[in-house]
Amino acid sequence: MAEPKENLQMEKIVSLCKRRGFVFQSSEIYGGLNGFWDYGPLGAELKRNVKELWWNAMTRQRDDVAGLEATIIMSPKIWEASGHVATFADLMRECPLTKKRVRADQVEPQSGTAYHFEGATDFDEYDNFAKKFPAQNQDQVFDELLRATGNELNFTETVIKLVKQHGSLRTDEIPAMAKTSEERFSVLLSAGKPPESAQKTAKEFYKQRGLKNPNLLGERAQKVENSTDFHPESGALLNEARPFNLMLQTYVGPIQSEENIAYLRPETAQAIFAQFKNVLETSRQKVPFGIAQVGKAFRNEVTPRNFTFRSREFEQMELEFFIKPDEVIEAIHGSVFTVQGSGLENSEPGTPNPEPQPNWGWQAWHHYWVEERVRFYEGIGLSRETLGFHHQTPAELAHYARACTDILFKFPFSKKDAAGNVIGDELEGIAARSDFDLSQHQRFSGKPMGVFDEELRAAWAKLPKEKQDALWKRYYDNRKNYLTKSAKPDETPEQISQQATEDANGLAKGQYIPHVIEPSAGVDRLILALIANAYTETTKTDDKGKSETIYVMKFHPRVAPIKVGVLPLLKNKPELVKKAIEVRDLLRPWMNVYYDDGGSIGKRYARQDEAGTPFCVTIDFDTLGEKPELLDSVTLRYRDDGRQERLKISELRDWLLARIR
Amino acid sequence: MAEPKENLQMEKIVSLCKRRGFVFQSSEIYGGLNGFWDYGPLGAELKRNVKELWWNAMTRQRDDVAGLEATIIMSPKIWEASGHVATFADLMRECPLTKKRVRADQVEPQSGTAYHFEGATDFDEYDNFAKKFPAQNQDQVFDELLRATGNELNFTETVIKLVKQHGSLRTDEIPAMAKTSEERFSVLLSAGKPPESAQKTAKEFYKQRGLKNPNLLGERAQKVENSTDFHPESGALLNEARPFNLMLQTYVGPIQSEENIAYLRPETAQAIFAQFKNVLETSRQKVPFGIAQVGKAFRNEVTPRNFTFRSREFEQMELEFFIKPDEVIEAIHGSVFTVQGSGLENSEPGTPNPEPQPNWGWQAWHHYWVEERVRFYEGIGLSRETLGFHHQTPAELAHYARACTDILFKFPFSKKDAAGNVIGDELEGIAARSDFDLSQHQRFSGKPMGVFDEELRAAWAKLPKEKQDALWKRYYDNRKNYLTKSAKPDETPEQISQQATEDANGLAKGQYIPHVIEPSAGVDRLILALIANAYTETTKTDDKGKSETIYVMKFHPRVAPIKVGVLPLLKNKPELVKKAIEVRDLLRPWMNVYYDDGGSIGKRYARQDEAGTPFCVTIDFDTLGEKPELLDSVTLRYRDDGRQERLKISELRDWLLARIR
Repeated sequence: MAEPKENLQMEKIVSLCKRRGFVFQSSEIYGGLNGFWDYGPLGAELKRNVKELWWNAMTRQRDDVAGLEATIIMSPKIWEASGHVATFADLMRECPLTKKRVRADQVEPQSGTAYHFEGATDFDEYDNFAKKFPAQNQDQVFDELLRATGNELNFTETVIKLVKQHGSLRTDEIPAMAKTSEERFSVLLSAGKPPESAQKTAKEFYKQRGLKNPNLLGERAQKVENSTDFHPESGALLNEARPFNLMLQTYVGPIQSEENIAYLRPETAQAIFAQFKNVLETSRQKVPFGIAQVGKAFRNEVTPRNFTFRSREFEQMELEFFIKPDEVIEAIHGSVFTVQGSGLENSEPGTPNPEPQPNWGWQAWHHYWVEERVRFYEGIGLSRETLGFHHQTPAELAHYARACTDILFKFPFSKKDAAGNVIGDELEGIAARSDFDLSQHQRFSGKPMGVFDEELRAAWAKLPKEKQDALWKRYYDNRKNYLTKSAKPDETPEQISQQATEDANGLAKGQYIPHVIEPSAGVDRLILALIANAYTETTKTDDKGKSETIYVMKFHPRVAPIKVGVLPLLKNKPELVKKAIEVRDLLRPWMNVYYDDGGSIGKRYARQDEAGTPFCVTIDFDTLGEKPELLDSVTLRYRDDGRQERLKISELRDWLLARIR
Repeated sequence: MAEPKENLQMEKIVSLCKRRGFVFQSSEIYGGLNGFWDYGPLGAELKRNVKELWWNAMTRQRDDVAGLEATIIMSPKIWEASGHVATFADLMRECPLTKKRVRADQVEPQSGTAYHFEGATDFDEYDNFAKKFPAQNQDQVFDELLRATGNELNFTETVIKLVKQHGSLRTDEIPAMAKTSEERFSVLLSAGKPPESAQKTAKEFYKQRGLKNPNLLGERAQKVENSTDFHPESGALLNEARPFNLMLQTYVGPIQSEENIAYLRPETAQAIFAQFKNVLETSRQKVPFGIAQVGKAFRNEVTPRNFTFRSREFEQMELEFFIKPDEVIEAIHGSVFTVQGSGLENSEPGTPNPEPQPNWGWQAWHHYWVEERVRFYEGIGLSRETLGFHHQTPAELAHYARACTDILFKFPFSKKDAAGNVIGDELEGIAARSDFDLSQHQRFSGKPMGVFDEELRAAWAKLPKEKQDALWKRYYDNRKNYLTKSAKPDETPEQISQQATEDANGLAKGQYIPHVIEPSAGVDRLILALIANAYTETTKTDDKGKSETIYVMKFHPRVAPIKVGVLPLLKNKPELVKKAIEVRDLLRPWMNVYYDDGGSIGKRYARQDEAGTPFCVTIDFDTLGEKPELLDSVTLRYRDDGRQERLKISELRDWLLARIR
């Protein structure tokens, strides 16, 4: 659990997000929807800036990446190939008492005595009913009702008899309460526990169903051996198992039938693999190259938490960077340039990332992308000190993955390690996924996903036989390993060996399936990191002892929702307003400008500070030439330290552009 | 139907879209998914540009619009308030024969004789079976089988008897074919039609189920009066009614139960209404102001068609512009400035739109937004001649709408009117929706959606009594009209009058519910319009009679996916390449640049023409100073006419920025 102080910090951030229009609860007027968040005016701009910067850095600023924008709903076969249909689905059983869920195949076997109850009535209702009778008859009515309980027919007869006998009720006052809850409930007690304990639990269960004072019906005890039907903590008999897949499911087409099932994508990556060949053929790219995509994804999280960090609807920025397998690099270049380790341990912070080289193997590429992404975060204001790194261990890695480095941000809710250092939570994972993804889609779609490389074909022909054999064998082993681990039930070892042989034979013809490095970032958690990182508060106490808290959102100018506030010193001086509007219109085509003429200049500065606007320009009487040497200059104010300086209007645009881009 | 020539045009466009990576079929390697389309590298850039231009024009370039980015999945209550749950849902019944669907409540009553069939066997299977017997027995076998048909027990006994009798079959060759199809089928014949007609239809039905030569079983006739159970065209008994709502449905939370139903939004607008108060309170906006949003929406179209024009997953750009009701304008300003008509008939093309004025009523605002949007389309290359307009008639308008103008684009698939002019299909609708939306959410959420306006309160107090009464009455009548038409079943006329009175009394306190003007545009159809508009082909025949077709995509530079191609004249001259890369890196931070050094310069120009790149710059030997006066200048080539001119590298960036922004 996070420290109280840190929770307080999150509370303050959530509160500012709502107050200033960064983030609202989705559907708030209807009580909200758990795990869904809307971005208000400032949040929407912040998010657009982040996505635009990512797209620019990953796509437009590079020759070796092409963009893609695929649909959220795709063929369900894609999710069979990716493994999401099978492995994202759990059979879950719910405890009817605590609502806690357990995976049906992971319930601990238990033994003891099970107590079954058929339902319950409510003593309080008997009491209320009895109170409608003359005082001297109330006890008798109550007792007779109690005796009749458990048999509906008896009960109804008794009620009618009582009503007739005492003659004080109208027929429509006769309650229909023979069984107030017909829901059955069972609970398992381990050996030695008294039956009263089962009754207590059962009463709790019926209380949850609205019975104030439950009167249990039809109790029955039964010995139970090694049963997996009871909740390990509460002992309650679990509800029927129901499938629970993290993918949100829908039906496309007019009928809600099996063949029309479709899923909202749980990640954007798979569309990239599915369209790999189309992009390759239309974009004039050659391996190594990447395909980038930004877009929404959905996961039906059981417990969305930490504000926007783990939500059910979120946005991803994913790059799949396709590279040659190491065997191909070695065939062409004689050897593979690699990096010891695959994380940041060898990097020099602050230095530019090296230019990619043709002889890079997967390790060098993985290293490169981790570095590239860290530089991206540094470039938008997250210093290395605010980040953390997690290198997945072999046990954590998927069977096909070679390495995965997570870039973490130290959130206010992040846990600490044993030494008391904040660990951080994942912003982005950079995975080396081998050729798993394209191979899966090749096998599931029956469409070839490999590429032809003339350089490989030519190089291979010149290799000495023993080198060919060694590379062939390594490629064969890798393919065989993949094919074995991903085999469909009807595939025999012979078929697998044959396929691996065919694949390895492809090398001589210049054919191979590209490997992939996947930097996969979450937009929403990055936004939250930027907000947490920008958040500062200072409490000032004036001479009279009155204190005020000042909030400044210290966003990097590149991501700040508003780049500059344009403020006429006074609202009621038309010349000031006219000039200010000129400045606004001068800057507006180039950046997001906020024009504000309401309230004192100090209040307007404070407003922009809370919005995270890095610069404000004020149009004052000097701008109009009160001091002739200051004609057509403005006061420029820095958000972070309140520093002010004088700048010519003619220089303003370029001065600002140099800082916000 | 579109003319053949026009379909050909669409085919060419679809083909170019795939070939050049504008649009791919979603999940193509898995056979695609009907109604879903992906944007490839060029398409993704085009779409980003369009959305960015819209967001800029509608939000960043204006003081009076705030942005929003809400979730796709929202509380289902939002769709109850908006009417989508009720009115987007149809009960549909399917004809088992033709697969055509009809709305269950719209089937024409029919009378006649219904013929019911219990199932069918296959004569051909009898025949195949009989052929396993000696030739002289085949007719007998066939006849006996036929006689036994319709009673499984008899049939099986007969088969066994026949097999034993002739002794020529192994037991495992005995077919299980007593009833090849057990599906029941019924068809209605109107009076006078011969029963053979029913049998013919039934045979057709069973043929669809794989029976080659159906032998009908259990025929039974029945008189039918005014039944709505039969398909009006085929006469076949309709399948059970099944609900069909155009909203895609899913379940949020671990259990697929009623209370967890959620919908993928069928439009982005409703989130704006639901968050109206949050935005108002955090953005320092006052009515009149707007909230803009861009995002995905989903509709389960029965028949997606016309390429990306009508798809199931699409993107919208919607503005809700909130204005004061006319009664409020009149109370404050004495009268309402309005425009005769509400469309374009009074506008002067080419002139700037007038500045909005405080005394504008809904008509003036509606007119303003139609004009504003047309100017937007003109600004990205769609001239007024390519557009059309449709002013919805009172019969077409929703009961709450005051006006709606659709802006159409003349697509190759668009139909012609009686005079032979292309009508066009909708790009955007600009609707005056009164205060319907906010009122609905106020009633369904129980949260106040009105605003307080000090100016109104002050002005009202100074109005003469008769003016107050007149405005009160008009406002009351409008509210009463809305409340009556949108009443829930349990609302009485008295309650409605009381609510309308309360609402009208609010005016004196400065309170009202804003009206709204809604310009709602579809991104994907706009992209398709831009592509169709840009598409040109020219076939050139050379001296030898060899002809070649040249494709040029004449996008407006603002939307063009690539802004400039940077081409070194020769790839194998390091000085040229070095200089070209310098130019690339000079321009790249400011625009999307494509660097290309592969193939002849003519081929590279042609490639950029097909991608729609408006400008190319070539780095040649003069750039390096072969002609000293041309040192550090480049050849700039225009896409549309191939014109070339010389430009200094130092001027290049600003020259291009002036044209692409």
